[in-house]
Amino acid sequence: MKRTEIKSDIAWSAPDRILIHGHNLCDDLVGKIDFGQMAFLQIFARLPKDENERRMFNAVMVILVEHGITPSSLSTRLTFSGAPESVQAAVAAGLLGLGSVFVGSLDQAAKMLQEAITDPNNPGDLELKAQAIVDDFLGRKAIIPGIGHPFHKPIDPRTVALFKVAKETGYDGPYATLITLIGQKAEERTGKILPVNVTAAMAAVVSQMGVSWRYCRGLAVAARAVGLVGHIIEEIRQPMAGEIYMRIEHEAGAHLAPKQ
Amino acid sequence: MKRTEIKSDIAWSAPDRILIHGHNLCDDLVGKIDFGQMAFLQIFARLPKDENERRMFNAVMVILVEHGITPSSLSTRLTFSGAPESVQAAVAAGLLGLGSVFVGSLDQAAKMLQEAITDPNNPGDLELKAQAIVDDFLGRKAIIPGIGHPFHKPIDPRTVALFKVAKETGYDGPYATLITLIGQKAEERTGKILPVNVTAAMAAVVSQMGVSWRYCRGLAVAARAVGLVGHIIEEIRQPMAGEIYMRIEHEAGAHLAPKQ
Amino acid sequence: MKRTEIKSDIAWSAPDRILIHGHNLCDDLVGKIDFGQMAFLQIFARLPKDENERRMFNAVMVILVEHGITPSSLSTRLTFSGAPESVQAAVAAGLLGLGSVFVGSLDQAAKMLQEAITDPNNPGDLELKAQAIVDDFLGRKAIIPGIGHPFHKPIDPRTVALFKVAKETGYDGPYATLITLIGQKAEERTGKILPVNVTAAMAAVVSQMGVSWRYCRGLAVAARAVGLVGHIIEEIRQPMAGEIYMRIEHEAGAHLAPKQ
Amino acid sequence: MKRTEIKSDIAWSAPDRILIHGHNLCDDLVGKIDFGQMAFLQIFARLPKDENERRMFNAVMVILVEHGITPSSLSTRLTFSGAPESVQAAVAAGLLGLGSVFVGSLDQAAKMLQEAITDPNNPGDLELKAQAIVDDFLGRKAIIPGIGHPFHKPIDPRTVALFKVAKETGYDGPYATLITLIGQKAEERTGKILPVNVTAAMAAVVSQMGVSWRYCRGLAVAARAVGLVGHIIEEIRQPMAGEIYMRIEHEAGAHLAPKQ
Repeated sequence: MKRTEIKSDIAWSAPDRILIHGHNLCDDLVGKIDFGQMAFLQIFARLPKDENERRMFNAVMVILVEHGITPSSLSTRLTFSGAPESVQAAVAAGLLGLGSVFVGSLDQAAKMLQEAITDPNNPGDLELKAQAIVDDFLGRKAIIPGIGHPFHKPIDPRTVALFKVAKETGYDGPYATLITLIGQKAEERTGKILPVNVTAAMAAVVSQMGVSWRYCRGLAVAARAVGLVGHIIEEIRQPMAGEIYMRIEHEAGAHLAPKQ
Repeated sequence: MKRTEIKSDIAWSAPDRILIHGHNLCDDLVGKIDFGQMAFLQIFARLPKDENERRMFNAVMVILVEHGITPSSLSTRLTFSGAPESVQAAVAAGLLGLGSVFVGSLDQAAKMLQEAITDPNNPGDLELKAQAIVDDFLGRKAIIPGIGHPFHKPIDPRTVALFKVAKETGYDGPYATLITLIGQKAEERTGKILPVNVTAAMAAVVSQMGVSWRYCRGLAVAARAVGLVGHIIEEIRQPMAGEIYMRIEHEAGAHLAPKQ
Repeated sequence: MKRTEIKSDIAWSAPDRILIHGHNLCDDLVGKIDFGQMAFLQIFARLPKDENERRMFNAVMVILVEHGITPSSLSTRLTFSGAPESVQAAVAAGLLGLGSVFVGSLDQAAKMLQEAITDPNNPGDLELKAQAIVDDFLGRKAIIPGIGHPFHKPIDPRTVALFKVAKETGYDGPYATLITLIGQKAEERTGKILPVNVTAAMAAVVSQMGVSWRYCRGLAVAARAVGLVGHIIEEIRQPMAGEIYMRIEHEAGAHLAPKQ
Repeated sequence: MKRTEIKSDIAWSAPDRILIHGHNLCDDLVGKIDFGQMAFLQIFARLPKDENERRMFNAVMVILVEHGITPSSLSTRLTFSGAPESVQAAVAAGLLGLGSVFVGSLDQAAKMLQEAITDPNNPGDLELKAQAIVDDFLGRKAIIPGIGHPFHKPIDPRTVALFKVAKETGYDGPYATLITLIGQKAEERTGKILPVNVTAAMAAVVSQMGVSWRYCRGLAVAARAVGLVGHIIEEIRQPMAGEIYMRIEHEAGAHLAPKQ
């Protein structure tokens, strides 16, 4: 059997020291960088190059942490109620719902933008590209990823906040312009209110940071794990899982009761 | 059926704004706090009260992110090789191994310390308490949680680094003293080299920060989710899962081949 | 580094044949045994020795498949609503809640019985053993695993059905007697209605079949995976996850709305 | 807020009885049907209509249970080594890898067949349909789902076994014919050895049974959960996870050791 080499460049340890992506954990990281920089290091295999990059990355991660009561946080709470000894399983159960319906639009929006602009230094005619994307998606009656929101309209306030940081840090380049144009042209063509939602705004910003669309879901999953821990802590103090279970169990089966 | 109220204090949204633990996400958090402060906010339901608290918390989270090739990161990589469309599932699979064997010692060490010192302002005689704990565990041939390490010895360098930050930030109180005494007395009683390992050091520090031992595993799970995303990104570029599978499959079944 | 051998006795393949626990899959299993026998083979590493053993095992598995709307099946449905492309993740999310609260009582009841009767051919004085167990648990105000049920009382009908099969197949030995005595003595001591519930009945039966208590949760997890697939199929046709999410999200946050 | 009804038709309970898909669990199922019939009931919401249907379904499930050492069973074993208290989490971790790469070909093959033959009583010209499918996939350099196998060639023996049962039970209709023709035409066009593999054979059989391709992955997930429990039981007796971890950890990091 032919063997290929197994190697990882992430970490190396000796009894008296640990290197992570080439940095000495104890001498150079602990007490010197924050959790946001550490997340950046783990994902990009280097530390942020300057304060602007650090700030832009943190802004994205901050937005991703907490989205309130969702199928994902409900799944975490319900799982915790059955297996309180396994906090890790409750977080895992919540992460498993971050699929195509909720977080998938982030990858898909980033993919759409990165396929339209392969070199942000040479973005081409963004008006034309935006119109082509809108015509393509709407022509086949598909939803444009990241365009429109059922609740945060006419404007998604998170998009405004994120693009403000992008402007201040220099990450408001052609990707942000393109997604804004896509939103405008989609509103023109449909006559509906279709804000650039927060997933599209994040997609534009991380594309400008050079993050492949393939890694976007990873950012969301990492940040949401933090958020789900917050739901477990609240569930310990102020539980809702048992009540949800009883109510739904009662209602769902009521019609099956044999007639007297 | 009696109904009880369902409520969560974590998040609230209107079309034009989102509150998280009472803070306006767009006005007060995005671009203003980093991912570490956001994790703190989500876990403690308040922002860090000062730079010392922020720094101590970040130091703990930084240590928890990445532990190299472990059963957990291998499980993430193997799962990703079968379901590359589900990054969330690969992270979840890795988190599921953070149970009693690896991360459990963090909760257990924190529980031991918090049961010994219920009020850190009134810690009692720590020499006596340390001796009692050592005698209790070793008397029933149990492992003292967080004491000893198979590789990082005679000293765990992460303990040194973390306690240095604790000293600088004022979190080097009675819990750190107690765990240090426990380590010394365990070495005296057994004649073995038994460093205070990083999980015990973290347990002491977070106990001093007022974190209930019940929440400790949550911190570890949140931070490790970030770490596992890094393993997925490396697995995309430089895969090892297929090679592991082939080697193990080949070796594990070789003895079953029918004799010719 | 010292290496130890890696081996598995479960399966072996050649291009033209596959052995599973020593049986030729294509010649001897497919079309010849049913899914229940295959589950038995996979768990016991041998086929059932006779029709009685086969029937008893199937009766246990049949009971374990479906328990209606539970935190576990709700978690499956909610996860599916977010990641419908990952049926495996929705089943996994549901399994993760089968922890200490729901399925844990099966292991615990089996452990209690197996520690009390180490050799079922030589069971000792079961009256005395039952009294000692009841006194031990109730003396420290602990719940006796598998004794009592909030809804299926004064008798759990599944216990009756399972013990009927046990009687017909010869698996109604000392473990069934012991758990029945424990239930009686618990009722006598407390004056409450405390039926031997289905988990205790299953614990008695599988103990009589020689299944270590360590493997009991595995039986439950395997059977429930089948059950959860049924919930996904119903969720596709007749969804409830979206409605649950909307109702709970609305109720949970209502109290946070700023006063006008 | 508009509310829609929440209902489930799967189960209903009273203190003295439980109905599952309309059948009385204690009177009609326990001790009377086997685990295979129960799985059928849970998935199809009815019992098998005759012995042929029962036998065909069981043959498919038997094949799906155990596939030896795979990324999925390795993930289960590694997870169990870190969290032995959570059997459910170890099974879940293994299921999570049953995604597009391994089990996805089952859904995809069934989808291909069901789109080509919408009414099996009126299958149309299967030669033409097979040729069109082969031309379509190979024309865009795509893999035809279920065609070809890296190891089980020139014939997959499980396909032979499954189609034998299909013939005996009357499930060898147009779907089996179509997939066989697809295999032949793919071999003709490419000159390569491309057996109809077991996933394609299962896809043909379950299509003939009337199972929507959307539910196929559910069958695989349910059966494999049983298989993964077998791996946990073997891992308890004869562990490999620790050895895998040590070997891979050692090899993966060796190149990072600082030069002396």
